[in-house]
Amino acid sequence: MEIKETILTGDRPTGKLHLGHYVGSLKNRVELQDKYKQFVMIADAQALTDNAENPEKVRENVLEVAMDYLAVGLDPKKTTIFIQSMVPEIAELTVFYLNLVTVNRLSRNPTVKTEIQQKGFGQSVPAGFFVYPVSQAADITCVQGTLVPVGEDQLPMIEQTNEIVRSFNRIYKTDILKECKALLPKIGGRLPGIDGQAKMSKSLGNAIYLSDPEDVLLQKVMKMYTDPNHLRVDDPGQIEGNVVFSYLDIFDGDKEKVEELKAHYQKGGLGDVKLKKYLFEVLNNFLKPIREKRKELEKNPQEVMKIVLDGTEKAREVAKEVYSKVRKAMCLDYK
Amino acid sequence: MEIKETILTGDRPTGKLHLGHYVGSLKNRVELQDKYKQFVMIADAQALTDNAENPEKVRENVLEVAMDYLAVGLDPKKTTIFIQSMVPEIAELTVFYLNLVTVNRLSRNPTVKTEIQQKGFGQSVPAGFFVYPVSQAADITCVQGTLVPVGEDQLPMIEQTNEIVRSFNRIYKTDILKECKALLPKIGGRLPGIDGQAKMSKSLGNAIYLSDPEDVLLQKVMKMYTDPNHLRVDDPGQIEGNVVFSYLDIFDGDKEKVEELKAHYQKGGLGDVKLKKYLFEVLNNFLKPIREKRKELEKNPQEVMKIVLDGTEKAREVAKEVYSKVRKAMCLDYK
Repeated sequence: MEIKETILTGDRPTGKLHLGHYVGSLKNRVELQDKYKQFVMIADAQALTDNAENPEKVRENVLEVAMDYLAVGLDPKKTTIFIQSMVPEIAELTVFYLNLVTVNRLSRNPTVKTEIQQKGFGQSVPAGFFVYPVSQAADITCVQGTLVPVGEDQLPMIEQTNEIVRSFNRIYKTDILKECKALLPKIGGRLPGIDGQAKMSKSLGNAIYLSDPEDVLLQKVMKMYTDPNHLRVDDPGQIEGNVVFSYLDIFDGDKEKVEELKAHYQKGGLGDVKLKKYLFEVLNNFLKPIREKRKELEKNPQEVMKIVLDGTEKAREVAKEVYSKVRKAMCLDYK
Repeated sequence: MEIKETILTGDRPTGKLHLGHYVGSLKNRVELQDKYKQFVMIADAQALTDNAENPEKVRENVLEVAMDYLAVGLDPKKTTIFIQSMVPEIAELTVFYLNLVTVNRLSRNPTVKTEIQQKGFGQSVPAGFFVYPVSQAADITCVQGTLVPVGEDQLPMIEQTNEIVRSFNRIYKTDILKECKALLPKIGGRLPGIDGQAKMSKSLGNAIYLSDPEDVLLQKVMKMYTDPNHLRVDDPGQIEGNVVFSYLDIFDGDKEKVEELKAHYQKGGLGDVKLKKYLFEVLNNFLKPIREKRKELEKNPQEVMKIVLDGTEKAREVAKEVYSKVRKAMCLDYK
């Protein structure tokens, strides 16, 4: 008998989701929900670790992110969507796990080191941010997650979780906590920003959102970075680094057509405007049903919140069971 | 109308309580319970911050400490005794408060610095120990504590709590969290160990426990440090640093008698054995009713646990209310 893996993944609710999220994770999740037990966490508490002064933003985006999930096809019957801060067992496990990790070990975590630099905390790193690998171990173990979709840069976080799991099981002479494995993305899965930068991101202002209306989508496609030396229609154009073709490679199902366009562009005679209009059609065909489903959901935010709260209840059932075993192993089962 | 202060205090359940605890805090608590609302926390989660590998010890001592409390006269009708780890709101508040404190600020906490040295952690400070000022802020605020009995050395912990309270109230534009004040001990409140060291402590092996049977008490008194130069009964003896007189000063209600003994000892002619037998009587008179009450309690540990669990329920009621206000201020009131 095959043991079914449990996936734990999620997002920080700090903005609406965009095509980069779709390519990097959402598409995958929609496929994975048929193969595995899947928990998708809206990490509001973690979002607050570096947005403590912006609670309204986090609050608002919990709903936006949930709507994006449902719009792209995450099915609440298959995927348990839940809100992190509403599972008290995560905080409780975090507090216990903090005793199993040294300050030095946390200081050496390469992922946290890099992010501290990126976020420009300087000497003012919030303690909550510093210890977030520990809180992540609580996220994963509270639902007995065994498979965690992450990028290469997040591998040290998985290692930290497994160190905590091993320490816990060793110290408390148990095997209740499970180690987890990283589920790395397929190569070439990252979508560049419309400005040609390697990463699409809200803070870089180069993102196409799943919820962008048609006219905004058209504007963004028209602004896309192509070949800066392709000045006249008849000039030969470059494919490498040309964002329009990167998007076509990913979103256009008609691979033959894409090859034709590439050949034409390289030879000369295919203008950027014509090419972009074509990409717009492709993207719009992809985004239209998502956008329409999202419009429906937007009409009934209470219903969306109910789905998330029901999911949270389901996640809590699992978390309560894990936590009760943890307390028992720690001799804290007083009742 | 006078606003009644709320006291939060407690102990780490790492051993039975001794006369040093009585003089330093228990006596005070028995008096304070008539004047204030008083919460006494058995800090099992905090005890685990540096006893992670010793959960049985912590578990066992939760009951021992509770019996000591009741034996000295803490009255569950007046004082709410509760178990820290059974109030999930403390962990939840801790996780939120961690975002309001920087790693640098925690590194500079003088109390933690000193304790890290004392405990000999070296480079392996558990993260849970490092952040314990934050978890202490959660302990205090979860019951809206406004008055915290501490020693001078703990003042930086109170300051850290108040910094968190002010940050929280400022960032989330609220006034729900209350600052607290330290309640410092009266001068001369500290009891030396039986070996003459300044502090009575389990780890120094120089303690008289509230639960010590009569014969053990007698042995310990007979071993007490007096004046090492007082070799013959007729020699004049020293009072300063003489542990027997330190104890008589505190425990003997008959001050005139103590003055007589001091004069006699200084002049010469009063032997250590005779003096110690007198102290034994005094201490035994004091400890006898405590010991007897404790014996009764030991017969019915379930009853003691019920008192603590009832207290925990009461504390949780308050903590739930505070936590619900905290979530509302943080825009996390989803339901």
